[in-house]
Amino acid sequence: MIELYYGPGACSFVPHAALETIKAATGEDFVPRMLKLHKGEQRAPEYLALNPNGQVPTLVVDGKPLTQIVAICDYLDRRYPQVGLLPAESWARAQAMSQLAWMNNTVHTTFTHFFKPENFAEGEAVHAELKRFAAALYRTQLERIQGWVSSADPYWFGRRPAIHDFYALTLLRWSGFAGIDPDSLPVYKAYVDRVAAHPAVAAAMAREGIKLATFRKA
Amino acid sequence: MIELYYGPGACSFVPHAALETIKAATGEDFVPRMLKLHKGEQRAPEYLALNPNGQVPTLVVDGKPLTQIVAICDYLDRRYPQVGLLPAESWARAQAMSQLAWMNNTVHTTFTHFFKPENFAEGEAVHAELKRFAAALYRTQLERIQGWVSSADPYWFGRRPAIHDFYALTLLRWSGFAGIDPDSLPVYKAYVDRVAAHPAVAAAMAREGIKLATFRKA
Repeated sequence: MIELYYGPGACSFVPHAALETIKAATGEDFVPRMLKLHKGEQRAPEYLALNPNGQVPTLVVDGKPLTQIVAICDYLDRRYPQVGLLPAESWARAQAMSQLAWMNNTVHTTFTHFFKPENFAEGEAVHAELKRFAAALYRTQLERIQGWVSSADPYWFGRRPAIHDFYALTLLRWSGFAGIDPDSLPVYKAYVDRVAAHPAVAAAMAREGIKLATFRKA
Repeated sequence: MIELYYGPGACSFVPHAALETIKAATGEDFVPRMLKLHKGEQRAPEYLALNPNGQVPTLVVDGKPLTQIVAICDYLDRRYPQVGLLPAESWARAQAMSQLAWMNNTVHTTFTHFFKPENFAEGEAVHAELKRFAAALYRTQLERIQGWVSSADPYWFGRRPAIHDFYALTLLRWSGFAGIDPDSLPVYKAYVDRVAAHPAVAAAMAREGIKLATFRKA
């Protein structure tokens, strides 16, 4: 049995959409376990026993927990190679892992500086500077992703949605919170609209109760 | 032909030690390409063409570049599975990838806040706070690694040195720069001394001209 602990709108959307894609392609179902992050459920003792970082996502396979998006996605792809969550050919897979690692350790982390500056420093003035710096940097990183997805046809790796599509959607969705108008990244936005329209992705979004549009004009 | 662009003492030590381990186990050699990071050679146009982030490491395989430690290590392990750079069994590999991703996106990133606060914010006072916060957080993260390596016999995954050993060595070595006395992490330090004594690891350290001891009492 596969369970996924997720928080609505969090980065756990990446394996969530992957599991819906696996379900659509193979019929193998999973048990979604929602955590209300704003109520601190990720810091409950029983959850910390699964994931000592108190973060989502956690994948639980036959009672055993696995943390970290990169590890979960690599595991799901190796378990269901027929779904095409990552490229199969050796060098293409290496390049895909490089992009995945960069989205995870750099772009995602930049957003965390905006969203949770208290993870990195104390003091209101310091937090304000971290947020200002991160929002500007985040935009340049999204522009690089826009360059990559400008050739997506229709998805990152071709005709089947993959891990990178789910991460790219999540990162652009977050940009609204950082004050970035997605209309200023039109190629990226059009691509994410395509990704969001895929039935498996739409199913994960519906369960989480999230929409793509997060930007509000100041 | 395999080439590795590295900077002495940087995180590129992880694939550097891996390539020495591959060489010892299989006879397959590689071409080390040193970059003087303090002279900014990682920002030269010809290097940025290989790695637009201007970071080390970059692995070049038959002229094609691959960036990101996680991707490079996963690729090298899949190319040379007989060396044992990562566990082969599926679930053990997933757990190893989780630990590797965490060392890369969290522990490594914490040190970057200490070492290069200018990557995250502007202003001297803000940098000072980022460094203070990061040094304290880094210590708690090294303590978790110490818990993991307390059962290393002699290495992280048993009798053969692996990716995690090279990363753990690098992270403890950096701790001295952050004002952490490695003698305050005695189990971790003893383990790293074992790792550093392995001939392949010692060869990489000798080429980089680095030593384990970086801590200086204030």
